[in-house]
Amino acid sequence: MNNDIYFDNAATTMVGERVAKRVYEVLLSSATNPSSLHKLGRFAKEILENSRNKISSIINCDPHELYFTSGATESNMIALLGTLKPKFRSGRRVITTAVEHKSLLACCKKLENFGYEVIYVRPNKDGRNLIEEFEGLVDEDTALVSVMHVNNETGDVYDIKGLARVVKLKNPKTLFHCDAAQSFGKFVLDVRELGIDAMSFCGHKVGAPQGVGGLFLKNGVRACLLEGGVQEFGVRMGTENLPGIAGFAEACEDLGLESVASNFERMKLLKDFLVSKLLKIDGIRVNSAENASPYILNFSALGIPAQVMLNRLERDGIFVGVGAACSKSKESHVLKALGFSGEVISSAIRVSFCQKNEMAEIERFVEMFSCAAWELRANDTRGNLGVGR
Amino acid sequence: MNNDIYFDNAATTMVGERVAKRVYEVLLSSATNPSSLHKLGRFAKEILENSRNKISSIINCDPHELYFTSGATESNMIALLGTLKPKFRSGRRVITTAVEHKSLLACCKKLENFGYEVIYVRPNKDGRNLIEEFEGLVDEDTALVSVMHVNNETGDVYDIKGLARVVKLKNPKTLFHCDAAQSFGKFVLDVRELGIDAMSFCGHKVGAPQGVGGLFLKNGVRACLLEGGVQEFGVRMGTENLPGIAGFAEACEDLGLESVASNFERMKLLKDFLVSKLLKIDGIRVNSAENASPYILNFSALGIPAQVMLNRLERDGIFVGVGAACSKSKESHVLKALGFSGEVISSAIRVSFCQKNEMAEIERFVEMFSCAAWELRANDTRGNLGVGR
Repeated sequence: MNNDIYFDNAATTMVGERVAKRVYEVLLSSATNPSSLHKLGRFAKEILENSRNKISSIINCDPHELYFTSGATESNMIALLGTLKPKFRSGRRVITTAVEHKSLLACCKKLENFGYEVIYVRPNKDGRNLIEEFEGLVDEDTALVSVMHVNNETGDVYDIKGLARVVKLKNPKTLFHCDAAQSFGKFVLDVRELGIDAMSFCGHKVGAPQGVGGLFLKNGVRACLLEGGVQEFGVRMGTENLPGIAGFAEACEDLGLESVASNFERMKLLKDFLVSKLLKIDGIRVNSAENASPYILNFSALGIPAQVMLNRLERDGIFVGVGAACSKSKESHVLKALGFSGEVISSAIRVSFCQKNEMAEIERFVEMFSCAAWELRANDTRGNLGVGR
Repeated sequence: MNNDIYFDNAATTMVGERVAKRVYEVLLSSATNPSSLHKLGRFAKEILENSRNKISSIINCDPHELYFTSGATESNMIALLGTLKPKFRSGRRVITTAVEHKSLLACCKKLENFGYEVIYVRPNKDGRNLIEEFEGLVDEDTALVSVMHVNNETGDVYDIKGLARVVKLKNPKTLFHCDAAQSFGKFVLDVRELGIDAMSFCGHKVGAPQGVGGLFLKNGVRACLLEGGVQEFGVRMGTENLPGIAGFAEACEDLGLESVASNFERMKLLKDFLVSKLLKIDGIRVNSAENASPYILNFSALGIPAQVMLNRLERDGIFVGVGAACSKSKESHVLKALGFSGEVISSAIRVSFCQKNEMAEIERFVEMFSCAAWELRANDTRGNLGVGR
């Protein structure tokens, strides 16, 4: 990476030396299949359970309430499709938001096919309307509510604790699930305090390898996609990704998740500085809400198509995102649902940080970005950028 | 591992230095999210597609017919639950065998819940009855047939090519899926020659890390668990396990999958030698069919409970399996379906090899095993082994 600046951490974080070494070590250890009944299997099981202890302590759940999956997408699938079975849960209504991650919306689509009534609430700019709207929508027939903690495109934060309280007051039987892929390891997450029943997250947003996810399921909540598995206490069938899981636990140690709160404050300073500088540049519009996560900033350099800006920055060794990595070039469903204009959406850029980013990188980014914006506009005498201002 | 003998490769193979190094290298490379639109994302995409090229060439499919998953369980799920959708495929009958892997049977159970009629055919000792039985069962309403290539507990081999031909003759629209978790990399697998539509396999049975699987879907076969994903051409949603996938491709290189046929012959010699020696020991019964895979041998030391033998061997640094690793201590559904007696089942042991095993290990195993069997029986003067002879 040399002098490169990587501000696309919401897509995937870089893996550090310590985590890579741990994965390497576990791969070459004699740990085998955690389900095998001999010593090498028990050794694998030990690595698995130590990782579970480590990660569960971070979100304040019991180890046996944490299940490993292949990623947040699979966690979402188990939480939504694996809980709503006739004998597991009753009710035909599901309530979520229109700005959830694509994988969660795909699960909802599937629930619709199964005959569920799924309601997609559109948050307003700061998401403060959600509590009132959910209060009005949750009824006796509401089986499940799913709301993301931090939006992956804008960083907007939704009040999970407040929502869970309101939902449970209206119907204590309604299952409350939260997609915390963008807040795990970045926000102080206490599942007891939040009062939720299920939470999805993954490793590769916090310095762990790709291919590992976590699912919190509160004691007593039953869920699975396939029945009869022995792995992960019957919640998730399939041999466990042991090196990945060990790497996930190591990443949690490495990032010092116990100091989540202090990292949060530091990142806030960095982001506030960035916003103040960006707003001095001509034609910049910040799309993230004021109370958004300090780890994500979505903004538009009006008139400059996002992909053009991304390519230009790349030449300078700066890597940013355009909407969600996993939606590629399609128009952002999030910004659309939030009511942004086509001009804003087509030029929207996402910069996203990890705990290791420094002020010096922010400063260099601002400098390079201003130059890029100025140059692109100056050269666009014939309107080649295609959007116009 | 020192002088230890690891004969539980059907559960999970050991990972070698070369594969571990490759995973480490990819973790520390600047490859990020293959869906990201910048240079680092394109670099990740390149690693992904190179791996796809490598692995697809081994089974003789086009690269775009190979999809990466989190393991054989997920591949089975996509092949069975992701293809049988109203708009994808018609027919209400599904035919499989009673000796499939637990994950496949779990998918079938789910299909039953969805209203499919699932027929579980019991193979006889050498599986030669399957062709006739399937021929009689496949009808116009048969949506899918799924038969494993090599049984994970016994190593018994089923004639996939013959079955596929018969099934397609009876109903060309029936989808033919094969679970090849125990034959990928061990048998010469040519999906064109086999004439099948879908095939599941995984990496951790051939020296790759846990957490990576492959799914072959013939051109034109549509499948997915969740719709709308951009990863894996819409077949499998979720960020790809890039280090694991790269490790999988490296394992294929490392094992020399191009020399699958010669490895096969060498392993046959080893296994034949082992069988000839074992049969000289008092009270040994070989449970695998004569034409079984050279990589798996299932046998019983009558009167000695499998777990007792496993523990005893472990003391000598020998690691074997008891039935499928993932069913743990439950009674084997495979041996039961094959009609073995309770006495045989309770003492059944599975030894399973990888391409790296040597004759010297087989010789040492035979020696240690004979001692163990003799000792356990000699000490069992009061019938403490609990089974009797």
